[in-house]
Amino acid sequence: MKSIIAKHAFKLSDGNLFEKVTREKPIVNAHEVGIAVHASGVNPIDTKTRQTPVQTEARVLGYEGAGVVEAVGEDVTRFKVGDRVMFVGAPKWEGSNQTYQVLDEAYMTHLPEQLSFEEGASLPLTAFTAYETLFDVFGISENPEQNEGKTLLIINGAGGVGSIATQIAKAYGLQVITTASRDETMTWSRKMGADIVLNHREDLVSQFDAQHLPQPDYIFCTYDTDMYYDVMIDLVKPRGHIMTLVTFKEKQDLNALKQKSVTLTHESMFTRLTYEIETQYYQKYLDDLALKLQDGTYQATLTEVLEGLTTENVYRAHEKMEHQSHVGKLVIKF
Amino acid sequence: MKSIIAKHAFKLSDGNLFEKVTREKPIVNAHEVGIAVHASGVNPIDTKTRQTPVQTEARVLGYEGAGVVEAVGEDVTRFKVGDRVMFVGAPKWEGSNQTYQVLDEAYMTHLPEQLSFEEGASLPLTAFTAYETLFDVFGISENPEQNEGKTLLIINGAGGVGSIATQIAKAYGLQVITTASRDETMTWSRKMGADIVLNHREDLVSQFDAQHLPQPDYIFCTYDTDMYYDVMIDLVKPRGHIMTLVTFKEKQDLNALKQKSVTLTHESMFTRLTYEIETQYYQKYLDDLALKLQDGTYQATLTEVLEGLTTENVYRAHEKMEHQSHVGKLVIKF
Repeated sequence: MKSIIAKHAFKLSDGNLFEKVTREKPIVNAHEVGIAVHASGVNPIDTKTRQTPVQTEARVLGYEGAGVVEAVGEDVTRFKVGDRVMFVGAPKWEGSNQTYQVLDEAYMTHLPEQLSFEEGASLPLTAFTAYETLFDVFGISENPEQNEGKTLLIINGAGGVGSIATQIAKAYGLQVITTASRDETMTWSRKMGADIVLNHREDLVSQFDAQHLPQPDYIFCTYDTDMYYDVMIDLVKPRGHIMTLVTFKEKQDLNALKQKSVTLTHESMFTRLTYEIETQYYQKYLDDLALKLQDGTYQATLTEVLEGLTTENVYRAHEKMEHQSHVGKLVIKF
Repeated sequence: MKSIIAKHAFKLSDGNLFEKVTREKPIVNAHEVGIAVHASGVNPIDTKTRQTPVQTEARVLGYEGAGVVEAVGEDVTRFKVGDRVMFVGAPKWEGSNQTYQVLDEAYMTHLPEQLSFEEGASLPLTAFTAYETLFDVFGISENPEQNEGKTLLIINGAGGVGSIATQIAKAYGLQVITTASRDETMTWSRKMGADIVLNHREDLVSQFDAQHLPQPDYIFCTYDTDMYYDVMIDLVKPRGHIMTLVTFKEKQDLNALKQKSVTLTHESMFTRLTYEIETQYYQKYLDDLALKLQDGTYQATLTEVLEGLTTENVYRAHEKMEHQSHVGKLVIKF
């Protein structure tokens, strides 16, 4: 098998320190599945992890992908050799930037027939993050009728997480307002199902006022939390909930939350895997994702494909992520 | 009617600027009840409000009390003249430090027979705050069986809110760990029902380790949030929830929440009244409080009574609150 590895943490300005190596395929344990990976999704978290110390001999990045089952452990019940699957990874395991990956069967689902491997690789991690945010952080209902009248604001609706979060929230009955900055991203966010797209280069509070928009029950921040901290508190409904995925650059005044009794969650998409808790949610949410892709409720969020598992493509993918202007999802196809 | 008023914001070091005045009783509107107040509860929020600008001609402090119904508006359905009641107030209305107070019937409940007015006045605001925290912030179940195995840590279990929060959490099936610092407060917190009382003058993390205590699902902070910010994040379960009532003195690093995906709420007990949302919860929680006092599930948290509605007693009560070492609840009896 071929793997793109890094032996040390590095910045892109250090040059391209990724290496392509050939290694032995690992064996599969009882609950594990060995996947011939055909495509690997790229996410901002890849670039952050690249810059943290490497704890093993070599690190393989990439936290989602799609491929074909090549081996199954003796206790695996849900998959068989030849099945097309899409899967989620985590920094504590080897990643998906390689032609073969072994994972517990809990972290994958069947890839719907009409989706290509690239399309499948663009979804699992962002979709899981969005499901977790909506259901387990905000606590929305699984019954769409009970979510009627609730409003979600997504800061940066056209990014990878925002694109699938918009679709999930709409499927479960929420009104979705997003922000975007360019014609291209505004059009994309509407295509993902946003009811209203605001311009995040202009004052958001004024736009809420001018358009008589309701105070959001929930705000999901996927871009520059420091810049939006006060704005989000200003916009959110009293006793509302703000969730951010984005690391803060500065300390913040938590007293700003008090008058409205605002709740704030700072989420890592890997907490459940790091602490090995509530891992049953992976199967639950990935299966729902597959079901709703199959029946056409959701559409893939793929916008760009880099062809070939090369160090150049992995480096280029990281450059694109750090540039932060990406629309939808970028995938490396092998 | 006699009222203890303040015409301006002041610090205790400015001297006793409370005044006792005689005024006309206000009329009751359709949904309102006029109460002959017999006792007024004292809370830390009184001292904070005293130091904020007075928006009207004169401010009457005091946000909970007990007394006898003296007048009812034409649409009042749940109370009649002569009923003994306990009630919650808010800074936007006139307070309970006066012999007569008019409130919407939504903010009161019947005072159980076996409770004195002083006992009744010690509970409504702290109990409402604790109910709101447990059910609407932490989202515990109304079915105690579904809360089994969940653990609540209360920082400062012997204070007014901590004392009733302990009892409510126990009644609804949670394991309750509290912190206290003196023999007197540790004994009191155990009397309120705490399963385990830790010493908050010693390192809490070491005590959790030494006693093999579970990571709390929920942490309720009623004392010095800055001092406990990092400790609470260290102790809480991954994806756990921290709630504080206490204003921060410093900005904090919100990135500390990320690895465990911790949720934090900074709560004001008056948010629902300020924004006039979800006010039906007052009746719901105050009625449950009355029911569980009536049947002996809860006990009153009263520990000290100041006799007489005088400016000296209100000033002394504020001194005691600012000293921050109070056990249970302090009440002024008229």
